[in-house]
Amino acid sequence: MTEEASTKDRLVQAATRLFRQRGYDGTGLSEILAEAGVPKGSLYHHFPEGKADLACAAADWTAGEIVRVIDDSFHAAPDWRHGVTTFCYKMAKLFDILNSADACPIFGLMFDGPDQARFRIHAEAAFTRIIAGASHYAQTLGMPPDTAHDMAETFIIGFQGGWTLARVRRNSDVLRSLPTRLYGPASA
Amino acid sequence: MTEEASTKDRLVQAATRLFRQRGYDGTGLSEILAEAGVPKGSLYHHFPEGKADLACAAADWTAGEIVRVIDDSFHAAPDWRHGVTTFCYKMAKLFDILNSADACPIFGLMFDGPDQARFRIHAEAAFTRIIAGASHYAQTLGMPPDTAHDMAETFIIGFQGGWTLARVRRNSDVLRSLPTRLYGPASA
Repeated sequence: MTEEASTKDRLVQAATRLFRQRGYDGTGLSEILAEAGVPKGSLYHHFPEGKADLACAAADWTAGEIVRVIDDSFHAAPDWRHGVTTFCYKMAKLFDILNSADACPIFGLMFDGPDQARFRIHAEAAFTRIIAGASHYAQTLGMPPDTAHDMAETFIIGFQGGWTLARVRRNSDVLRSLPTRLYGPASA
Repeated sequence: MTEEASTKDRLVQAATRLFRQRGYDGTGLSEILAEAGVPKGSLYHHFPEGKADLACAAADWTAGEIVRVIDDSFHAAPDWRHGVTTFCYKMAKLFDILNSADACPIFGLMFDGPDQARFRIHAEAAFTRIIAGASHYAQTLGMPPDTAHDMAETFIIGFQGGWTLARVRRNSDVLRSLPTRLYGPASA
């Protein structure tokens, strides 16, 4: 990793963590800089609009991580349900590690912040990317494109609702129950 | 409606509207008072802790409204799917009226605000109340209690995820597609 990339990545990861924990309005630029160990000049070099740019980068970073978990879950899955199940268990584990009080950085952006139109467009792009990631595997597993897109979208709708309920309850069990909720009891 | 109840209701409804539009941090007490047309003294009479109390009242009010839509949708429904379908169409219409940019006040609370533990507990109670409202009708329609609770919870998970995606897309179509997503194509 080059020094440039490393500075930028450190900023995005520090911003993602802080936005998740404290929300957009609750996070100061100085805290992000301190946590990343980066001087103010470097911030504006990479992110000319400061906090708003970092918020969009945090949403992108999070979407990328979710797509990575989709790849890990589906690339060797024998069928769609196996992939969804592996994904849900991985995300439940991540939920437990992150601390359930933390928000989802993609949605923290949508609710907070002065620049809602830009943030919403970023959140929409993040969802599109995640649904496309899942749809790709649905097609690989033999579904026609329209069916694959619908399956992926329903899966992500269920995951989003399940993640929200898990946060409200501070309990990741609901994520592990999603495959049965969406597809009925597993066959023996 | 008594004068007392009317003042309190006006405060809660103004707070709910403003929190939904601007978030917790973005809404000032003075704006709530101005919108409700209520003097500051009355606020602290009804809500000693001011904005935090109003936020909890807004979550409760919203949960009550959702339960009311559940009642309207299910009380004459011939089966579960009809009730879910009516609910989804009613909420899609509400989404279109409210303006899709507005946040859900229950979740605005969870992400924002200094008093996250109290807000989260309120959000959890709101979800429990909504799921219990739907579960009641699932039982009335003949499901055993455990099945009814699971059906209701899956329905609310799907609705929460669908509402989020509708907000991201500023398009309520996803809400109308939920019955098919959850239960497959409607039989002729």
